[in-house]
Amino acid sequence: MTYVLFNDSILDEADVAISYKDRGYHFGDGVYEVIRVYNEEFFTLDEHINRLYESAAKIEITIPYEKNALKAMLHEYKTKVQTVNGSIYLQVTRGVADRNHLYTKDEVPVILGFDLPDKGVSQKQEQGVAAYVTEDVRWLRCDIKSINLLGNVMAKRKAYDHDCDEAILYRDSGVTEGSSSNLFLVNNQTLYTHPANNLILNGITRQEILAIASELELAVIEEPFPKEVLLHAEEAFISSTSLEIVPVHSFKGDIETTLNVGPVTKKLQYAFQERVTKKTNASV
Amino acid sequence: MTYVLFNDSILDEADVAISYKDRGYHFGDGVYEVIRVYNEEFFTLDEHINRLYESAAKIEITIPYEKNALKAMLHEYKTKVQTVNGSIYLQVTRGVADRNHLYTKDEVPVILGFDLPDKGVSQKQEQGVAAYVTEDVRWLRCDIKSINLLGNVMAKRKAYDHDCDEAILYRDSGVTEGSSSNLFLVNNQTLYTHPANNLILNGITRQEILAIASELELAVIEEPFPKEVLLHAEEAFISSTSLEIVPVHSFKGDIETTLNVGPVTKKLQYAFQERVTKKTNASV
Repeated sequence: MTYVLFNDSILDEADVAISYKDRGYHFGDGVYEVIRVYNEEFFTLDEHINRLYESAAKIEITIPYEKNALKAMLHEYKTKVQTVNGSIYLQVTRGVADRNHLYTKDEVPVILGFDLPDKGVSQKQEQGVAAYVTEDVRWLRCDIKSINLLGNVMAKRKAYDHDCDEAILYRDSGVTEGSSSNLFLVNNQTLYTHPANNLILNGITRQEILAIASELELAVIEEPFPKEVLLHAEEAFISSTSLEIVPVHSFKGDIETTLNVGPVTKKLQYAFQERVTKKTNASV
Repeated sequence: MTYVLFNDSILDEADVAISYKDRGYHFGDGVYEVIRVYNEEFFTLDEHINRLYESAAKIEITIPYEKNALKAMLHEYKTKVQTVNGSIYLQVTRGVADRNHLYTKDEVPVILGFDLPDKGVSQKQEQGVAAYVTEDVRWLRCDIKSINLLGNVMAKRKAYDHDCDEAILYRDSGVTEGSSSNLFLVNNQTLYTHPANNLILNGITRQEILAIASELELAVIEEPFPKEVLLHAEEAFISSTSLEIVPVHSFKGDIETTLNVGPVTKKLQYAFQERVTKKTNASV
């Protein structure tokens, strides 16, 4: 049986019926998180839950549970589905209403959670991936982790159509991030990444990497850089909850170059695994 | 009983269950139309259907019916729900799949249709509305009528929070459109509106107005203009399938000014009603 968290219940998926009037289905009017489980333990659960509430607040969705209650529901769900290594997807939409752009603030949010399998990314982590450099056409509130993801979806598809695993997006103001990851460059023992403003989603893994960099006394420069800077990177990697840290071995598309999987990336990968082990008692 | 068009069936709404794995619900991965019915007849049905297929093609959704078959389904649905005056909402999402940004092109699209009541906009058409001028933060593919509408939704809410009926959006490049309408200005017997490029949704009503303007020998300039131009407009109006033509009597927010409901707007409203009557045998 496949279990789904639906509002305050854990149901067989066959019993989960999303209303055709759910605003998530008409407007993409909702927010979400993907939370990693290692060795039966959530990793950075508080950080994800805090960001979920922040995203919701930015679009005036009031999640109808205290954070601790929602966390308890997630723990119960994780136990029910017996996740050892994998992820839990959690989304909150504004609720069910007659279709109208205008929301009333009286809607009752709809909660949906389900487990995602471990994606098996160890080969990518070792060998790296190709990334397709293309224009960022998304909206100007990428800091909200909303389910308005069509720009990300189209970029991801374009990357795969060009034999790449990820799209790297740029605006006139500089390279922003991947379609479902953050991007880091390495030059001279320094990490370069876009600042956490309205143009990127400030990944929890990104934040973990910045904390690790601080511990390792690696310099970090959080400033936008033009896409041509990709040509001169010693190393590059992408990060996300699912990927952790994955090197980029080549850029294609609007920038074409190849890179080595380098020592700084490897050092960060190692430190990240240590951090996971420390926080979850997992050996990964 | 409330009937819903769901794929190739007309069902009681109680029997419509949207899958929690519908990509429309995880990514806003779908497109839609709202088609007006006057006097039991569809208005500009072909134009809406053509645009639906164009929007779908732009995001690589292949609607699994010929246009004529889909139109026949809409006619059958309209008859079933006995719509006299109102609208039919129709959306197509990419289909049901395990959650993954990457679509495979093997998904089977999900069709959803339901009727929307006549909004009763005659008072707005006579007296005009206030419009809130604010920044356009939406993505750069507004030409796709997708269900990624969070930017529109947030702008609409902001307008209402400032006692306005609609938000008028602008970028550095100029004023684009409303959150669910197109914008026209009138100066010296000339209509000004944003060109139909990637920054606006080319409304069917907008296109009807341009055709009417041509018949009436009104000049039309389709070029972006800075928001300060709103200060000097003799008349302004917004247009949409639901609103038809509604004058703007005041701009608030980042531009503040008042306008009269003027003769050119009234002339276009009259001509639009004539066009509706001619095409649908409706007296509206």
